[in-house]
Amino acid sequence: MQIVDKFAEDYAVGQVRQTLGRTITEADVVLHAGQSGDFFPHHMDERWCVEEAGLGGRIAHGTLIIAVAVGMTAGDVNPQAMSYGYDRIRFIKPVLIGDTITVTAEITAISDHPRRPELGRVDELVTVTNQRGDTVLSLVHLYVVTKRGES
Amino acid sequence: MQIVDKFAEDYAVGQVRQTLGRTITEADVVLHAGQSGDFFPHHMDERWCVEEAGLGGRIAHGTLIIAVAVGMTAGDVNPQAMSYGYDRIRFIKPVLIGDTITVTAEITAISDHPRRPELGRVDELVTVTNQRGDTVLSLVHLYVVTKRGES
Amino acid sequence: MQIVDKFAEDYAVGQVRQTLGRTITEADVVLHAGQSGDFFPHHMDERWCVEEAGLGGRIAHGTLIIAVAVGMTAGDVNPQAMSYGYDRIRFIKPVLIGDTITVTAEITAISDHPRRPELGRVDELVTVTNQRGDTVLSLVHLYVVTKRGES
Amino acid sequence: MQIVDKFAEDYAVGQVRQTLGRTITEADVVLHAGQSGDFFPHHMDERWCVEEAGLGGRIAHGTLIIAVAVGMTAGDVNPQAMSYGYDRIRFIKPVLIGDTITVTAEITAISDHPRRPELGRVDELVTVTNQRGDTVLSLVHLYVVTKRGES
Amino acid sequence: MQIVDKFAEDYAVGQVRQTLGRTITEADVVLHAGQSGDFFPHHMDERWCVEEAGLGGRIAHGTLIIAVAVGMTAGDVNPQAMSYGYDRIRFIKPVLIGDTITVTAEITAISDHPRRPELGRVDELVTVTNQRGDTVLSLVHLYVVTKRGES
Amino acid sequence: MQIVDKFAEDYAVGQVRQTLGRTITEADVVLHAGQSGDFFPHHMDERWCVEEAGLGGRIAHGTLIIAVAVGMTAGDVNPQAMSYGYDRIRFIKPVLIGDTITVTAEITAISDHPRRPELGRVDELVTVTNQRGDTVLSLVHLYVVTKRGES
Repeated sequence: MQIVDKFAEDYAVGQVRQTLGRTITEADVVLHAGQSGDFFPHHMDERWCVEEAGLGGRIAHGTLIIAVAVGMTAGDVNPQAMSYGYDRIRFIKPVLIGDTITVTAEITAISDHPRRPELGRVDELVTVTNQRGDTVLSLVHLYVVTKRGES
Repeated sequence: MQIVDKFAEDYAVGQVRQTLGRTITEADVVLHAGQSGDFFPHHMDERWCVEEAGLGGRIAHGTLIIAVAVGMTAGDVNPQAMSYGYDRIRFIKPVLIGDTITVTAEITAISDHPRRPELGRVDELVTVTNQRGDTVLSLVHLYVVTKRGES
Repeated sequence: MQIVDKFAEDYAVGQVRQTLGRTITEADVVLHAGQSGDFFPHHMDERWCVEEAGLGGRIAHGTLIIAVAVGMTAGDVNPQAMSYGYDRIRFIKPVLIGDTITVTAEITAISDHPRRPELGRVDELVTVTNQRGDTVLSLVHLYVVTKRGES
Repeated sequence: MQIVDKFAEDYAVGQVRQTLGRTITEADVVLHAGQSGDFFPHHMDERWCVEEAGLGGRIAHGTLIIAVAVGMTAGDVNPQAMSYGYDRIRFIKPVLIGDTITVTAEITAISDHPRRPELGRVDELVTVTNQRGDTVLSLVHLYVVTKRGES
Repeated sequence: MQIVDKFAEDYAVGQVRQTLGRTITEADVVLHAGQSGDFFPHHMDERWCVEEAGLGGRIAHGTLIIAVAVGMTAGDVNPQAMSYGYDRIRFIKPVLIGDTITVTAEITAISDHPRRPELGRVDELVTVTNQRGDTVLSLVHLYVVTKRGES
Repeated sequence: MQIVDKFAEDYAVGQVRQTLGRTITEADVVLHAGQSGDFFPHHMDERWCVEEAGLGGRIAHGTLIIAVAVGMTAGDVNPQAMSYGYDRIRFIKPVLIGDTITVTAEITAISDHPRRPELGRVDELVTVTNQRGDTVLSLVHLYVVTKRGES
C-alpha cells in the first residue's frame, strides 16, 4: 500500500482491476455477526439452514461480502479521490461458508461534478464472483476525484 | 430475536423504527480492518489523520457503519421477506472513533413486483445519526415480501 | 432491541421464552480461549481430545456456553430489572464444536425482596439444549425488579 | 500450563491462589458483545451510560467477568478433576472499562461425593477484586475430584 | 501464571520445557491475517492453494506460528529476565490448518554479558513440532538475565 | 495485491521500500494476547505497568510488532520467492499502546544459494520506527528466489 496521486483525467472508462481470491470462512461469518450484531439463523444456525431453510448451509451476511469485496479493491491510497457512496448494491446469489470469491472493478462512467468544476465523478462497477464463476454481488462504487486541470 | 411472519400487506409507508445507540470503538475499527483487509491510514494511522490529513482522528470504514447500522435494524426474523440489496448508500459525514450512532428505519415505498404478482417490494430508508444529531450515512434497504393474498 | 418497562407484577411463574438456535463454532472456541485466557487442551488440542481424552473432539468452554446462552435470552432492555447473579450453574453434557444449541428461559419463582418492599425478586431457569434434545447446561438467572406498586 | 495430577486428598480447606492483574478493556467488551450477542446499551453506548444511566461509563458484561476470572484461575491441567458447575454467582459491583481486576481462589469445602465413594467434591470460592480493592464478583467453582485411595 | 524470580545462575544448559499441544485453526489464520494485514492467497484462498499452488490447503502465516509457539512457552513471569530478540528463525515445513503443534524449549547457551558483569545471557532453542513429529519451525530466544551474585 | 514475478536478478542491494504508518492499538494487544496466549502483565495490566514496573503503560508483545511489521511489507505476491526465515530479530525499544509505527525494508545482501545454482538468496533488513523516529525493532527477512537464468 502506497500513496499515489491519480486525478480524474487518469481514469478511463473500461479500465479493469481484478483481485486475487479469498475464501469466506466460518470465522469471517462469526466475526461479522459479532461486529454487526446480526445473529440471524441464516448465518448462525447450521441445523436450521440445512434442515428447515433448505439453504445448503450457513450463508454469509450481505454486509460481510460488501466489506470484503470493497476491501479487496483497496489498492493504493489516492489523496485525490474520495469515496462518497455506492449505488445499486444487489445480492444476486448467496455466498456459503467455504466459497472463494474474486472481485472485478471496472470504471463504467466518468463525468463532471454538477456544481464543482474542479471535480470529476468516477463510477466503478464492482462485481463479485464465486469459485464456480457465478456472480454473487454487484455494486457501483462512487468517487469524486480532483481534476488535474491545465496546470 | 424471534420468527414473525409479516406480509407485504403488513407494511405501510411511514412506519418508523428507531434503534438504541452504539458507540463506534477503536476495537470496531481494528476488527473491521482485519475483516475487510482495508488498512488505509484514514482508519489505522492516528498520527497521519491528525497531523497530515486534518481529520480530527481515525475515521470508521464506510462498510463498518453500513454493517453496524443494518445490523442494528435486524429485529425479528421474517420468513416472508428477503433482502435483495441497497440503493443510494451515501457517506454524508465521517464517523470518528468514539462517536455514538443511532439508526432510524422508515418504510418509504411499497409496490408490486414487476413480474411476480405474489410478491411486493418494500423500500426502507435507513438513516444513521451521530450523538450531535448529524446524519452520517443513509441508504435504502430493498426487500421483496410475499403478499398474504386473498386468504 | 428496544426499551420496554416491565415491572415485578408483569412477570408470572411459568412464563416461557424460547430462542432460535446457534451453532457453536471452532471460531467461537478460539475467540473464547483468547478472551478468557483458558487454552486447556480440552478446547484447543484436537489430537489430544480424540486420541488421549476420548472426548470425540474439542469441547466448548463452560463459560462460553454461559455467555452465549445468557446472551441469547437478552431481548428487550428493561429499565425496571437488574441482573444480580446466577444460581446452580451446572454443566450437564459437553458441547462439541459444531453442536447447535437453543435456550429456554422460564420464570420459576417470584418473591418479595427481603428488606426492600418496593422490589421483587424473579428467578428465571435457563436451560440449554443441543440439536439432539439433550440438556447441556442449566442455571437460574436472578433479577431484582421494581414493583409498579399502587400508582 | 502443564498436566499435574492432583487428587481429592491433595486439596485442603483454606488453600488460596492469587492471580496477577488484568485490565478489562474496551476491546474485551466489544469482543464479548460480539461473542454473546448482548449489545445492551450498558455495554455499548457510551453516551447513554453517562448521560442517561448515570453509570460513569460503559460496564463489562457479567459473563465477561466470569469468563476472564475463571480463566485467570486456570493453572495446571488436572486430569483427576472435573468442573461441574458454579454456585452463587453474584455481581457485586460493576466493572467499568479500564478497571483492573485480580482474582483470589480459596478452597472452602471438601466432601465425599454422595453416591460415588471414589470421588470427592471440592468447592473453590472465586473472588474478583478491582484496583481499588472492591469485590466486584464472587462465585463458588464446583469440582469433582478422584480420590487417590489406599492404592 | 505467577511471578517467580529466576536468576542467571538458576538456568543450566540442557534444561528442557515441553508444552502441551494446540491445534492451529482456520480461525487462527483468519484472525492473524486481520492482525498482520497479510492476506496472501497462501493463507486465504483455499481454491488457489489446492488447485494452483499444490499446497494441500491453506497454510498458517510464519508469524502466526512464531507468536503461538513463543506464547506457549510463556510460563511464569520472571522479573529478572528480559527477552531481547530471536536468532535463526527458520520455517522448516508449512503448518496447515488443522495441524496440532507442540513446542520444546531447551537452554542451549549461557554466557556473560559482554559489557555488563551483573547480567548473563541465556539462549533458549524453541522447536515446534507437528502431530506427525515433523519439526516445522525453530528459533533461538535470547534473554538477558540478572545474576544473583554473591549476596 | 497482485501476482508479480520477480527473479533474483531483479533485486539489487540498496533497494528500499517504505510503508505508511499504523497505530498499535489496545485492541491489537488484546487480540494478540488472545491469539498467542501470552497474558503477561506487561501487556495486560495497566495498573502494574504504571505503578510497579515503571513502563509508562502497557507495551505491545514483541511477536505482535513482528507480525504487523512483516505484514506491512507484504506487497505483491511473488511466485519466484519464498520466505524461509528471519535472522537477528532485536527488540530495541518497547512499543506502547498508541504508538504509530512505520517500516522500512532494504535489500542488504544477494548471494547464490550454496547448493542449488538455480536459486539466489536475498536478505532484506526490516526496520520499524515509532512516531518519534526511534527504531523499535529490526530483523533480517530471508528469501530464496529463483534466478531467471539465461533463457
